[in-house]
Amino acid sequence: MVLARVVGTVVSTSKVPQLQGIRFLLLERLDAATMKGTGDQVVAMDSVGAGPGEVVFYVSGSSSRLTPATEGRPSDATITAIVDEVELNGKAVYRKDAL
Amino acid sequence: MVLARVVGTVVSTSKVPQLQGIRFLLLERLDAATMKGTGDQVVAMDSVGAGPGEVVFYVSGSSSRLTPATEGRPSDATITAIVDEVELNGKAVYRKDAL
Amino acid sequence: MVLARVVGTVVSTSKVPQLQGIRFLLLERLDAATMKGTGDQVVAMDSVGAGPGEVVFYVSGSSSRLTPATEGRPSDATITAIVDEVELNGKAVYRKDAL
Amino acid sequence: MVLARVVGTVVSTSKVPQLQGIRFLLLERLDAATMKGTGDQVVAMDSVGAGPGEVVFYVSGSSSRLTPATEGRPSDATITAIVDEVELNGKAVYRKDAL
Amino acid sequence: MVLARVVGTVVSTSKVPQLQGIRFLLLERLDAATMKGTGDQVVAMDSVGAGPGEVVFYVSGSSSRLTPATEGRPSDATITAIVDEVELNGKAVYRKDAL
Repeated sequence: MVLARVVGTVVSTSKVPQLQGIRFLLLERLDAATMKGTGDQVVAMDSVGAGPGEVVFYVSGSSSRLTPATEGRPSDATITAIVDEVELNGKAVYRKDAL
Repeated sequence: MVLARVVGTVVSTSKVPQLQGIRFLLLERLDAATMKGTGDQVVAMDSVGAGPGEVVFYVSGSSSRLTPATEGRPSDATITAIVDEVELNGKAVYRKDAL
Repeated sequence: MVLARVVGTVVSTSKVPQLQGIRFLLLERLDAATMKGTGDQVVAMDSVGAGPGEVVFYVSGSSSRLTPATEGRPSDATITAIVDEVELNGKAVYRKDAL
Repeated sequence: MVLARVVGTVVSTSKVPQLQGIRFLLLERLDAATMKGTGDQVVAMDSVGAGPGEVVFYVSGSSSRLTPATEGRPSDATITAIVDEVELNGKAVYRKDAL
Repeated sequence: MVLARVVGTVVSTSKVPQLQGIRFLLLERLDAATMKGTGDQVVAMDSVGAGPGEVVFYVSGSSSRLTPATEGRPSDATITAIVDEVELNGKAVYRKDAL
């Protein structure tokens, strides 16, 4: 899985039927050492109700279909968790409630 | 999924039988911060009737076979949506009707 | 799928049984803007009878097993089409018969 | 599989149900020539009880669901081994008990 | 598949049960133009009895489980062939018996 921040949304009306009702969030990968974005972006299906600015992790590949919201849908990236805390080398480098 | 622009087409007559009747579009990945191409290209199967210059997103991996147009076909990249709007950090950085 | 040129061959006698009878071609990825190689190489199974110097595209991942020649074989890259023409931004940047 | 060091942990309470009870470790890839981190990070499910600072390898893709701890769970990276020794070009470049 | 050289071994005693009895080799990717390593490393399961210094190719993804030695095991990289010869642009750039 990969740490990322929700930086935006993507809206589409012309899409394959299996994408109906799905929220598409734009994510930017994070470097845990700085908790800053790396510039790498991905469009992910949301399965946890993540909101703008939140730190999440997403899963890639066939596992991105293994959530209640994405089963049977053509996803290659699904947010599976909103992150509460990241600890790096024994230090908390991110705490959600400290935002 | 990955944001990309339709920049061209690829035509082939000598191909495996499962590719008959499929349109192959050449895509260039987009950086949402600028909505400009990154230079990275992929050949994708089209499942939504995307046209030249349109902003789309495509799905990779086994999910690229999970659309009505690509089921059972050897795809690793399928366009699943034509993008109407991209919002980044609270601002609309792309609107289809504004083109 | 990815545009590439056939730049060589790879021969092996000590291999797993499922690779018997398969031709392995060495491919170099192409940048469609110049139709020159990017230096990135991959060894692909051939399912279309591609020859040296030809422009092809190959499929990666589990879809590389979805061709008559590669079904059930441990492939992660299979050539599925010999390319006749590539059009980029409205111009033909490659035509097979123009070689 | 990829050599990596356990550099941290990731905690989440808002997550998809299949992630309940899983430990998420933050890994940094290692260059075996120096056994130093490359800066590339991944969040992995732990299936072997790895601890901070340990050298492990993890598996990606659908195989990351093929362990007793991760079966049926949406993982794309699972630690499957704690590494005892790495030999490179005939020399031991890492020994766990030598730490 | 990817050309690589066997540059080392990885030993583990604490691992998931499906890894028992598997040899883990450290590979470095090769650039066929020079037959030198690129610095990119991967830990692969061996299914062909490859030895130190040998040139091989390995398969990634779900196909890495499609060999007699790796069936049902959590692999994402398996050596499936020891390479005898690599021809690039009409010239033999590597011959095993010429070593």
